[in-house]
Amino acid sequence: MATVATLALPQLVSAAFAKENIKKLNLDKDDVILFQGDSITDWGRDHNKSFPNDTGTMGTGYAMLTASQLLLQNPDKNLQIYNKGISGNKVYQLAERWDTDCLALKPNVLSIHIGVNDYWHTITSGYTGTIDNYISDYHKLLDRTKQALPNIKLVICEPFGVKGVRAVNDSWYPTFDLFRKAARDIANEYGATFVPWQSVFDKALELAPGSYWTLDGVHPAIAGEALMARAWMEAIG
Amino acid sequence: MATVATLALPQLVSAAFAKENIKKLNLDKDDVILFQGDSITDWGRDHNKSFPNDTGTMGTGYAMLTASQLLLQNPDKNLQIYNKGISGNKVYQLAERWDTDCLALKPNVLSIHIGVNDYWHTITSGYTGTIDNYISDYHKLLDRTKQALPNIKLVICEPFGVKGVRAVNDSWYPTFDLFRKAARDIANEYGATFVPWQSVFDKALELAPGSYWTLDGVHPAIAGEALMARAWMEAIG
Repeated sequence: MATVATLALPQLVSAAFAKENIKKLNLDKDDVILFQGDSITDWGRDHNKSFPNDTGTMGTGYAMLTASQLLLQNPDKNLQIYNKGISGNKVYQLAERWDTDCLALKPNVLSIHIGVNDYWHTITSGYTGTIDNYISDYHKLLDRTKQALPNIKLVICEPFGVKGVRAVNDSWYPTFDLFRKAARDIANEYGATFVPWQSVFDKALELAPGSYWTLDGVHPAIAGEALMARAWMEAIG
Repeated sequence: MATVATLALPQLVSAAFAKENIKKLNLDKDDVILFQGDSITDWGRDHNKSFPNDTGTMGTGYAMLTASQLLLQNPDKNLQIYNKGISGNKVYQLAERWDTDCLALKPNVLSIHIGVNDYWHTITSGYTGTIDNYISDYHKLLDRTKQALPNIKLVICEPFGVKGVRAVNDSWYPTFDLFRKAARDIANEYGATFVPWQSVFDKALELAPGSYWTLDGVHPAIAGEALMARAWMEAIG
């Protein structure tokens, strides 16, 4: 007989992962880990700081919370963790700064979260890029990355929206879902670890309303950041 | 036969607690939680922000990391979390701003971490306060707090130093130990939950050197902040 009891965290995160066939991320000693993305990644960081494992470098978002768990749980690994997210970025804007903000750091683990603005800016800022641009720009970015850093371990994080909270309404769908699917497909194509954040947020709505987890449907509240970090850590083998 | 295997986290934190007789903290629905202290608490927060559960309000230190875990693990409790730590504070300086930075917020849970500067500034800044001043000022602060907020749940966090890392050397001891003991005694006297951070850092040195957990022996690195948050959460019943 199936149970319908609501799961508590962290079982809820594990349940969201269980439905997926996630390639686990293996961490190695001396791994350099880079978080890349848009405002959700950038959140609260000091752009003048570039020292690894530094609170100014990491900011106050999921990247900082994930770094804190990575460093706590792997004291034997000498991890060096950076955050180079930039607010407002779409995938083509990552490409524009990729030499300095990714390749020069020679990351062993690259975690990318990009795609919300590639959709959102089409309805707010007159951006004319399409899902096809997103897919082809993402491919180019990863091809270039793997050419420069053939052994890089990729983590592709799912773009997500929490419907009904301020910025995110029915008009986003089904178009926005194409960006989520594209990120997942790209993760599979490139043998990347996929972090299914949309699934995790969907599950979290069983415990508290969207406004608890996110400020505006796009940017997470602290609870949502912690949820994202918990999910990222779940992807480690 | 006893095992000498090194414990991993979080078992290591649990082991540090197991040696103590810690009164557990019970969280209730709608609890207002206030973190108070010095630079270790203040770390990275925006003093112009005072909205609860906000990354600007909470900063980038253990207070933020603890808040993130509190919010993640208690989505049913409607917790409102604040940070009002101020860099450089000693216990008498908490008292100077207590009406606005504590009592006016009407916290149900008050977490205080104070005492490092009460010792440190005697060797760096000509501060002439003694352990007796620390104890009597701390008593006065808590008496005043309990008079205004009789049902407040107190969390007293242990002042700590990580010996051998920059600021903290043999000259600190045994005097600094008196401040640690005083905080513990005060926790017992007031029926407070005690967070034994020194014990936890001492245990963590089995996994990585002090320079991994702290920047200067006093201020934690991200790994140390995460360790502190993990220990704070361990104190919850």
